[in-house]
Amino acid sequence: MKTLYHFQTAARIEAGAHSLNLLGDHLDQTGLNQIRSVFILTQPSIVSLGYADQMKEVLAEKGISSEINTDIQPEPTEQNIEEVFQLFSEGGHDAILGIGGGSVLDAAKILSVLKTNEKPISALIGTNLVEKPGVPLVLIPTTSGTGSEVTPNAIVTFPEKELKIGMVIPYLLPSVVILDPVLTTGLPKAITAATGMDAFTHALESYISNKANPFSDMFALESMRLISSSIQEAYHHGDNLEAREKMLIGAMYGGMALTSAGTAAVHAMAYPLGGKYKISHGVANSMLLPHVTAFNADHVIDRLSDVAGVIGIEPKGSKASQAERVIRKIEEWTADLNIPQNLKTFGVSKEDVPSLAEAAADVKRLMDNNPKPMSIAEIEAVYLKLLDM
Amino acid sequence: MKTLYHFQTAARIEAGAHSLNLLGDHLDQTGLNQIRSVFILTQPSIVSLGYADQMKEVLAEKGISSEINTDIQPEPTEQNIEEVFQLFSEGGHDAILGIGGGSVLDAAKILSVLKTNEKPISALIGTNLVEKPGVPLVLIPTTSGTGSEVTPNAIVTFPEKELKIGMVIPYLLPSVVILDPVLTTGLPKAITAATGMDAFTHALESYISNKANPFSDMFALESMRLISSSIQEAYHHGDNLEAREKMLIGAMYGGMALTSAGTAAVHAMAYPLGGKYKISHGVANSMLLPHVTAFNADHVIDRLSDVAGVIGIEPKGSKASQAERVIRKIEEWTADLNIPQNLKTFGVSKEDVPSLAEAAADVKRLMDNNPKPMSIAEIEAVYLKLLDM
Ligand SMILES: [Fe+2]
Ligand SMILES: [Fe+2]
Repeated sequence: MKTLYHFQTAARIEAGAHSLNLLGDHLDQTGLNQIRSVFILTQPSIVSLGYADQMKEVLAEKGISSEINTDIQPEPTEQNIEEVFQLFSEGGHDAILGIGGGSVLDAAKILSVLKTNEKPISALIGTNLVEKPGVPLVLIPTTSGTGSEVTPNAIVTFPEKELKIGMVIPYLLPSVVILDPVLTTGLPKAITAATGMDAFTHALESYISNKANPFSDMFALESMRLISSSIQEAYHHGDNLEAREKMLIGAMYGGMALTSAGTAAVHAMAYPLGGKYKISHGVANSMLLPHVTAFNADHVIDRLSDVAGVIGIEPKGSKASQAERVIRKIEEWTADLNIPQNLKTFGVSKEDVPSLAEAAADVKRLMDNNPKPMSIAEIEAVYLKLLDM
Repeated sequence: MKTLYHFQTAARIEAGAHSLNLLGDHLDQTGLNQIRSVFILTQPSIVSLGYADQMKEVLAEKGISSEINTDIQPEPTEQNIEEVFQLFSEGGHDAILGIGGGSVLDAAKILSVLKTNEKPISALIGTNLVEKPGVPLVLIPTTSGTGSEVTPNAIVTFPEKELKIGMVIPYLLPSVVILDPVLTTGLPKAITAATGMDAFTHALESYISNKANPFSDMFALESMRLISSSIQEAYHHGDNLEAREKMLIGAMYGGMALTSAGTAAVHAMAYPLGGKYKISHGVANSMLLPHVTAFNADHVIDRLSDVAGVIGIEPKGSKASQAERVIRKIEEWTADLNIPQNLKTFGVSKEDVPSLAEAAADVKRLMDNNPKPMSIAEIEAVYLKLLDM
């Protein structure tokens, strides 16, 4: 547990069903009543559902013009973001609104600071290299997963290096976040499952991490409470607004927890599975979470019994048995959510394990934040379990 | 429970013992590395303890000059704040640091926007009348009570009208908050008691209020958990840093809860006791809290049983009996903290009750947020109980 810790988040967070329609008011209340032209960054699925046009209308009612762009690809590359930046720049807009999944939100954050810093992405990638605040930024998540709307990070993919690198700077935090559960009711089941388990992983890893602190603990526990009580309902009955709202708030709290405390070995081990085998981030986390938690358990028994308390496990038996039941519960969810449990499904074989383990061990920042040190052999053992089932 | 709700807070919050010494880093991390001259607003007791000079030194190490001012009076008047503003203006400072109790923090918030808005206080008092963000503002609370460091309000006293009026605008939220429990270890016992119970009241009233929502609920419950587990220890052993840290974080969460959900009848009924009889805000709240909660109980049994769960009451018996035990627990604390329980102590008599009740009923914004409507007769009945003990 850290003795010095901090908290920083979006300037203003609005929530509730149909809060999207009040965007104009939200801008006024944040002192953003000077905006005249907005670049709406989104993705084709959101345009199909009509939300991009709805956004355009809400802005038009305020006398604000806007342009919709859907050119950001999933897990965008440096080149892709720079190309969209050209279009944004030429449009003469004075603000950005990102409405979509994690990739769209990350790209919107980057565009915001590219505009004011007048440097290429390559000069700004890394930690604290951005010198000036960006243009006003509104972020509206349409999945309940990354928590990108409240994290000071954005990920850029460098395909030639088989690498993803983060831009990390508080200036990436937006002026306004809108959490409207209506937007997530149309989410495909598989995305609900994967992004939801990613969010739960953020909360659980933050809570047991070495940098856990009184701020991250509160957000992490509440995130797990909300997600555990709604993820199955959101998956099976996607139009249940109450469950969707819990997931959206839970995912945001997960983002707040990880901003303050960071993630750990699960995320370190998930990255190589994404890069090489294209396993989605949420699925990779979800597969790894029970096994890494079982490995960590003896170092964080107390913490895992706290988790048991908020995810609906009866408070009886030893702390060790409660920790055990947390792991069983996660396995139950992932089975119910139809998330694959074997890496063979994705073409991974035993021969791949040493290079996977090496790549995971290389994510030192996250491995150092894991409550129990992991040797290469121990990392390999976890990957092997995922090939053995 | 509200269906649309929002959250807004200080740009960056730093916490932990001795975090004060890292002020220079905190300014850098918030993009405030241009500051050259700071007006340090504080109070004589903080100067005596050496903290104002310590602040000056920390700033000097960063090449930032500063001037210490202690002219703000407790519960400052319009005239008092305007006078200090003249000194601040003449000093040519580009930022304000408020280090002290609620009155100092409130005054620092007001000075910050007076500087940029170039209008008198009388033109800015009220809700959303301030047009421009203020100069950079750092707030460092030295009591665990008001939560002023994270609320968008500041109170000004107008003695000629026997009135206190709030300036309410998100621009009053600071750039940096530092929560350093070391600063509160020297707090006199009576202040620890009164401000601590004020903070608990913020959390409890927010949690049962009509505007309670998923954001305020999380902060309110965690606030009550922290305060209930530390207020007696902080009172009896003021140098216990762990208890002081819990109180400081708990009071801040109380401020976050009330910013999102508001307070209710306890605060409405406390104001007239402050104005006319000079009963301190925390003492007035503390005296009223069990009686108003008993009045509200049948409308908020479920909520009070949640409160029972976080303040260490055993989860057995009916919800009604748990609510009852919450009220008994509050009475136990206030007795242990030596807070007077009878208004006669302050020279209030039965004849004063009708005018007190009328004044309380006039605080409509808070009364409307109370979960159970209160008639004038019912308000009077509560005041009478406080004369009858
Ligand atoms: Fe993640
Ligand atoms: Fe208060």
